[in-house]
Amino acid sequence: MLQSDRLRHPSLFDKIVPAETAAALIADGMTVGVSGFTPSGYPKKTTLALAAAIRAGRRCRINLMSGASVGPEIEDALAAVGGVTRRTPYYAASNAAMREGINRGAIAYTDVHLSHLAQHIDYGFLGPIDVAIVEAVAVTENGDLVLGPGVGNTPMFVKHAKTVIVEVNTAQPLALEGMHDIFILPRPPHRRELPIYEAGDRIGSPYLTCGLERIAAIVESDIPDRVRNLVPPTPENQRMAGNLLEFLKFEQRKGRLPSPLLPLQSGVGSIANAVLECLAKSELENLTLYSEILQDAVFTLIASGKVKQASGCAFTPSPNVMKRFLAEPELYRKSLILRPLDISNHPEVIRRLGVIAINTPLEFDVYGNANSTHTGGTMMMNGIGGSGDYMRNGYLGIFITESTAKNGAISRIVPMVAHTDHTEHDTMIFITEHGVADVRGLDPRERARVIVNNCADPRYRPLLLDYLRDAEKGGGHTPQDLAKAHAFHIRFNRTGSMDPERAPAVAFATK
Amino acid sequence: MLQSDRLRHPSLFDKIVPAETAAALIADGMTVGVSGFTPSGYPKKTTLALAAAIRAGRRCRINLMSGASVGPEIEDALAAVGGVTRRTPYYAASNAAMREGINRGAIAYTDVHLSHLAQHIDYGFLGPIDVAIVEAVAVTENGDLVLGPGVGNTPMFVKHAKTVIVEVNTAQPLALEGMHDIFILPRPPHRRELPIYEAGDRIGSPYLTCGLERIAAIVESDIPDRVRNLVPPTPENQRMAGNLLEFLKFEQRKGRLPSPLLPLQSGVGSIANAVLECLAKSELENLTLYSEILQDAVFTLIASGKVKQASGCAFTPSPNVMKRFLAEPELYRKSLILRPLDISNHPEVIRRLGVIAINTPLEFDVYGNANSTHTGGTMMMNGIGGSGDYMRNGYLGIFITESTAKNGAISRIVPMVAHTDHTEHDTMIFITEHGVADVRGLDPRERARVIVNNCADPRYRPLLLDYLRDAEKGGGHTPQDLAKAHAFHIRFNRTGSMDPERAPAVAFATK
Repeated sequence: MLQSDRLRHPSLFDKIVPAETAAALIADGMTVGVSGFTPSGYPKKTTLALAAAIRAGRRCRINLMSGASVGPEIEDALAAVGGVTRRTPYYAASNAAMREGINRGAIAYTDVHLSHLAQHIDYGFLGPIDVAIVEAVAVTENGDLVLGPGVGNTPMFVKHAKTVIVEVNTAQPLALEGMHDIFILPRPPHRRELPIYEAGDRIGSPYLTCGLERIAAIVESDIPDRVRNLVPPTPENQRMAGNLLEFLKFEQRKGRLPSPLLPLQSGVGSIANAVLECLAKSELENLTLYSEILQDAVFTLIASGKVKQASGCAFTPSPNVMKRFLAEPELYRKSLILRPLDISNHPEVIRRLGVIAINTPLEFDVYGNANSTHTGGTMMMNGIGGSGDYMRNGYLGIFITESTAKNGAISRIVPMVAHTDHTEHDTMIFITEHGVADVRGLDPRERARVIVNNCADPRYRPLLLDYLRDAEKGGGHTPQDLAKAHAFHIRFNRTGSMDPERAPAVAFATK
Repeated sequence: MLQSDRLRHPSLFDKIVPAETAAALIADGMTVGVSGFTPSGYPKKTTLALAAAIRAGRRCRINLMSGASVGPEIEDALAAVGGVTRRTPYYAASNAAMREGINRGAIAYTDVHLSHLAQHIDYGFLGPIDVAIVEAVAVTENGDLVLGPGVGNTPMFVKHAKTVIVEVNTAQPLALEGMHDIFILPRPPHRRELPIYEAGDRIGSPYLTCGLERIAAIVESDIPDRVRNLVPPTPENQRMAGNLLEFLKFEQRKGRLPSPLLPLQSGVGSIANAVLECLAKSELENLTLYSEILQDAVFTLIASGKVKQASGCAFTPSPNVMKRFLAEPELYRKSLILRPLDISNHPEVIRRLGVIAINTPLEFDVYGNANSTHTGGTMMMNGIGGSGDYMRNGYLGIFITESTAKNGAISRIVPMVAHTDHTEHDTMIFITEHGVADVRGLDPRERARVIVNNCADPRYRPLLLDYLRDAEKGGGHTPQDLAKAHAFHIRFNRTGSMDPERAPAVAFATK
């Protein structure tokens, strides 16, 4: 039951409606923007009610926008009932119904750099926003919003939405108030700088401006975010993280990185978390993060005093870590800053601060192009997210991954990536459990040798070197044999392994 | 003979040496940075003398850095005598000896985003700069430099060089003085914003700080820049430019572009020049340019009053246009601003101003990836240059090119580009003589139909649609048939045409 700590103006209580009533505000064909970023700070009740109505026979297919992938109460619920026509800017494979629809071509998914979406909405490139559904911790007496732990593109959705639905979620702690820094850039030609000079600089307001009159409906919610506890790092992850740490210290010794380190950005998932846990155990001090998403390890780094400032557009505490936050909210509140996605990922700030970008690709090729999105070049695994924003604009761009997948049946280093998300111009450092390939300043033929010999699994090195030797017979700055460039992927599709020596007896996938 | 208008401190006259003496300061294995950008403002005498010494038997191979491709007195002279080990950040096909060395793998060429090189030098990623050779219009009484018409990376080379050689070129007019705006960003973590809010804002000094004591040698020069007169636009170029103009006006009518237009960036070459000439004849007024290079058409736009501010890192007046500049230097000096390359191409400024980026690719594919550099995926045609800086960060990114090349034997729209310089995430608008493909907000399958139907040559459309239909049988977000994705290129290599109906009787190229 909502109280005046959550709804701070009496008139707000008159706006409380059942989720079904809020869902009825969403009509077929509308563009709907939802708050949140990953399973963090996203609305749950209204979309569940909309999915139920569709299942019961209502025709409603929407154009769904968000910060990133959000929770199953939106993604799976709506995709499973055919309620989504379009989806942008991000999607992750964990949402099975959405994945199926996107890869069948039934849901039109547009995969964009996460720093771009908000401004493309603001420029009018993507049409009007009909409805914004925002999960809030509270609504102020002015009708402004205290957001949850995932900001994403919420400010831009609210700026443009004709109708604003607010889900006030009592499962989100009031301790979140004050952690946000909401800032909306004007459109060109009236733009000034983003005055962020250190990761922790605050430039906006802790509240998202909305206004009492713009809130069409308030829905009560108490459904917690669906954040899972992370699995502990594997020995292989720890080895990769160790290689990264050695590389950073080497760069410091060479005078190419200052001490304390420049701000870090670290992607999503278990490798990223392992990297930060490794840093937590290292002798490095006074670390800062200017990142997209802040996972569990950041809390460890703050608690140990190693990190004083951590900026992101979302933090995703697992249930275990949420308890730590609630036990000492002041400690984390003074160190964590939650920004809109287009600010957390903004090229201007990333380049100015000199962020060290650390991301995980699906595969990369001998010449240093990387695929972050498509398995076999066709199936969308998950979107490019913010990796392009950081890798292009960071001081250092580091790709870190295991050298193989599926028990060695897939080499993550291939002759030519089957889909390019990051070109050779945007990559510098590759790290696997086998070592570090530093390709700064190298030409393609040199890059290829360093990448194969330092990063590829030894079993795949001869195959990759064979490709290079054959390709070089044709000459060229970037020697390629286009007839064989995708042979690894084609062999995998035919036999189930990229390794001709280890093909399973029975072929499985076909294409 | 140099006078005190060119050498403004008496001690400078003592530093005048023959070019051969200056060239002797360059030792085997050194890294040498040269001023200039395209055949504009580059030194000529010292490198010619070095090439002559190498030809006469001296062993000297250098690591050559510049702003972009420069003139034959550097590129061809040194490459022809085997004087170049490494080359970065840009190269253009017009330099035959350099092209041959790069594509044979004898010269290690590293192709980078032009906004990146200066900071990578500053970060220490590319080793020390041993020698900077700078063409100057004059040297001030403090030993600071009045640069020529091409700034490029000169400020960063001079900042880091152990030895500075200055070629004072009396063929460069003193009227250039005051046009430059030299600004060097500090390294992270001490960076502030770039305070450029309009294309014409000046934030630095008209002089490049060097100092009397740092100038090791002065060489007299009177060799003019090798800028050629541009050919007039073809009817096809005019049709493409007309399509672009109609598109921009349509966007204004839809409220997606303001009036006056946002600043324009236009690439190098005849298409780019045709686009600007088309704008010059249009009803659009109050145009500005925030571009990398300012070609002839910019002078027409300034003279007609249509352009008030034009910012670039170089201007390349052809001999005809140079006469116009010299006749009315004040007119052009108040409108033209010459900046360092990392400022002209800086993501922060490009995104803030909302630059409309217009560039020409070699080819693009049905899903909207673009190849700017490699013919057949292997042979370096010319570097990526600044196209990535502008296309990624601009308000609008527009690729404009003819739909075919070599009399129709090459389709510039292919199933999969053979080399990716710009990914699907970085492209919005494609224009050929056939029309405009606006792929903003579309998913890959939709993009493919729009690109093929609006941009491809009608003769190639059925082949491209066949590819898509076949690929879609395998499903996926981005349907591909990897065994056929490069069939156009392979067919061209085998038969001399991408079109199976029009293959020449005798195959020519082989790979």
